[in-house]
Amino acid sequence: MTTIGSVDNGVNVQALLDAREALKGSPEAAQFTWRATTRWENGVHTTTTVKDFFGLGAEQTHKARSTFTADHPDVFAAEDNGITPIEYLLVGLTSCLTAGVASVAQNRGIQLRSVEATVEGAHDIRGILGADSDVRNGYNGITVSFSIDADASTEDIEALVAQSQKRSAVFDALTNPTDVTVKVV
Amino acid sequence: MTTIGSVDNGVNVQALLDAREALKGSPEAAQFTWRATTRWENGVHTTTTVKDFFGLGAEQTHKARSTFTADHPDVFAAEDNGITPIEYLLVGLTSCLTAGVASVAQNRGIQLRSVEATVEGAHDIRGILGADSDVRNGYNGITVSFSIDADASTEDIEALVAQSQKRSAVFDALTNPTDVTVKVV
Repeated sequence: MTTIGSVDNGVNVQALLDAREALKGSPEAAQFTWRATTRWENGVHTTTTVKDFFGLGAEQTHKARSTFTADHPDVFAAEDNGITPIEYLLVGLTSCLTAGVASVAQNRGIQLRSVEATVEGAHDIRGILGADSDVRNGYNGITVSFSIDADASTEDIEALVAQSQKRSAVFDALTNPTDVTVKVV
Repeated sequence: MTTIGSVDNGVNVQALLDAREALKGSPEAAQFTWRATTRWENGVHTTTTVKDFFGLGAEQTHKARSTFTADHPDVFAAEDNGITPIEYLLVGLTSCLTAGVASVAQNRGIQLRSVEATVEGAHDIRGILGADSDVRNGYNGITVSFSIDADASTEDIEALVAQSQKRSAVFDALTNPTDVTVKVV
């Protein structure tokens, strides 16, 4: 394992540590609001836009407006203009855990060469189709597999992944319940 | 409200109803596996690819390979090459609920003219920063607001949204816990 000084995974860990200290004393600045807007196109085809959010006590803006297409595939008699909504959860999960691996590695002085995460979500679609009321609508289970090339022992790499999981926003959001309110305005 | 015959929201409801009946008798065909692969780029910047999945007892492929960029914004001392991982959950949620509204409307003979859903997720980032161990890492709460223009009464529109929520894969995945296994291979 190399020393912290020579390690560069591209994560500004000092800024994050400084933010942690600063936000301990000003919890109101830590209240973020993330937003998206979805427009119905046709069928189950939608376009979702993400641009602005709120945080550090002020309105913030991403550098660019991002748009995301969702649809259902051929096997659901749809046009497959984009991935399905439930696949977006997998995108969020492994991108979060991978970012966490890079951050923790930087903090621990471990140089990463490559990180790849594959994720599989098991989904019994009888739930969403209403074919069996005992089958849940969401995933029945998700497995993430990391392949990591780094200047570290297997034990250190496993510890990186464990710490990333412990701090992951998306891992928490999927493994624990969140209140979701849906209303018509 | 118009009759079912004259309504076209672009959803092939008959195919979905047929699938429901078919899968009642062959639950193994209803077992889907959705997949994604995330590659670390640098810092907390990742690229995630979605292409294949398994379902109806066979390997399936989306028409196109989709790639998604995630990163952290400026305020987290990152490069903001894309939206944050946790924002992808919002993309999935409102695209799922909106697709559900269109499907239910088709089934109920309600012609939609426009549907827009805005979503806000409240996130206290002291959790992920490790600033306060009593703060969870994920969302503290999510609110979805629908604006729907349709040939239907307010009550019928509210019922559409309620039924979509009841059948939504992503709504379930966020409001109820899912087992997520993370391993190093």
